Amino acid sequence: MAFKEERNADGLKVIDTKNKRGLVLVITGDGKGKTTSALGITLRAYGYGMKVCIIHFIKGDIHSGEMDALKHLKPNVEEHFAGVGFYKIRGDDKDPTEHIESANKGMDLAFEKLESGEFDIVILDEINVAVNMDLIDVERVVEFISKKPKETHIVLTGRNAHDKVIELAHTVTELKEVKHAMQKGIEPQQGIDY
Amino acid sequence: MAFKEERNADGLKVIDTKNKRGLVLVITGDGKGKTTSALGITLRAYGYGMKVCIIHFIKGDIHSGEMDALKHLKPNVEEHFAGVGFYKIRGDDKDPTEHIESANKGMDLAFEKLESGEFDIVILDEINVAVNMDLIDVERVVEFISKKPKETHIVLTGRNAHDKVIELAHTVTELKEVKHAMQKGIEPQQGIDY
Repeated sequence: MAFKEERNADGLKVIDTKNKRGLVLVITGDGKGKTTSALGITLRAYGYGMKVCIIHFIKGDIHSGEMDALKHLKPNVEEHFAGVGFYKIRGDDKDPTEHIESANKGMDLAFEKLESGEFDIVILDEINVAVNMDLIDVERVVEFISKKPKETHIVLTGRNAHDKVIELAHTVTELKEVKHAMQKGIEPQQGIDY
Repeated sequence: MAFKEERNADGLKVIDTKNKRGLVLVITGDGKGKTTSALGITLRAYGYGMKVCIIHFIKGDIHSGEMDALKHLKPNVEEHFAGVGFYKIRGDDKDPTEHIESANKGMDLAFEKLESGEFDIVILDEINVAVNMDLIDVERVVEFISKKPKETHIVLTGRNAHDKVIELAHTVTELKEVKHAMQKGIEPQQGIDY
């Protein structure tokens, strides 16, 4: 690989990227760990002193517990929930327009945060699901990617990523479920499944 | 799903796992994001007040920068490097026995941390690679899994996970590289690739 090794003030080797540019990263597939990966990206970036904004789509407050640790990373990490909970599953009895409005408000916020230039990384968690379920038009996501400041990274998570989004991305990882404890009737476990 | 919803002191919904049991999780495949997922698991668990021990295999100090954020999660998160750097690639000129000794010392430490019962999650990062490269006998990992206290979770990362390890795991996720920025000659970028 064409990167140079240097050492920082602590005597640790660091990689020096000469050509800094923001990437578009897609994390998709049916396997466990897409949001977890986004959390990992956030934590690592925090260690570098980078600023991160995460906007969660679909997810309502049932998922807030999972994200408690992000509170410790303020103010460099900012988090927003743009969802009103599960859509069309698990007893969702909300009017679809409520989900659509909430998701699109999330996109408005995403544009605002991206264009502010304040963040090194903007993460739209579960955005692929919101597009796949027709809560958000894929063209809004295409436009979002097109407005990316040069050095800002964008991370788009969720299963069933749209072909147009995959086409525009620099790096796409698909998580495949090889096996899952739930198939053996094991309940979701704190710290691993949520 | 057979879990109950409750609300915590902040009025947020929480999932109450009645049958608490530690899982064995394998994160493998050639796609980007395996260690990142492990970082995400660590951050989420930290938010729950859980204790996590991470032991990195193969990796030497070039990777320390990536992990800087973990220092902010002390003392609940403990981290150790059991590698002496890339093995057989990128100018590695060390005697193989140095790599083997270092990896096996890492396994000794892993057993010690696991059996202490002090940690909710023990993560062996890149252990699958260490096994695949014959630095560690797979039977040591099999034994490690067999010694897991009932409520402790184990996370084993790295490409080419051994069949025996996959067989023993509860949940296995394979990360597939659909595309990668490096294929277009884009250098690794801080905050995304390292």
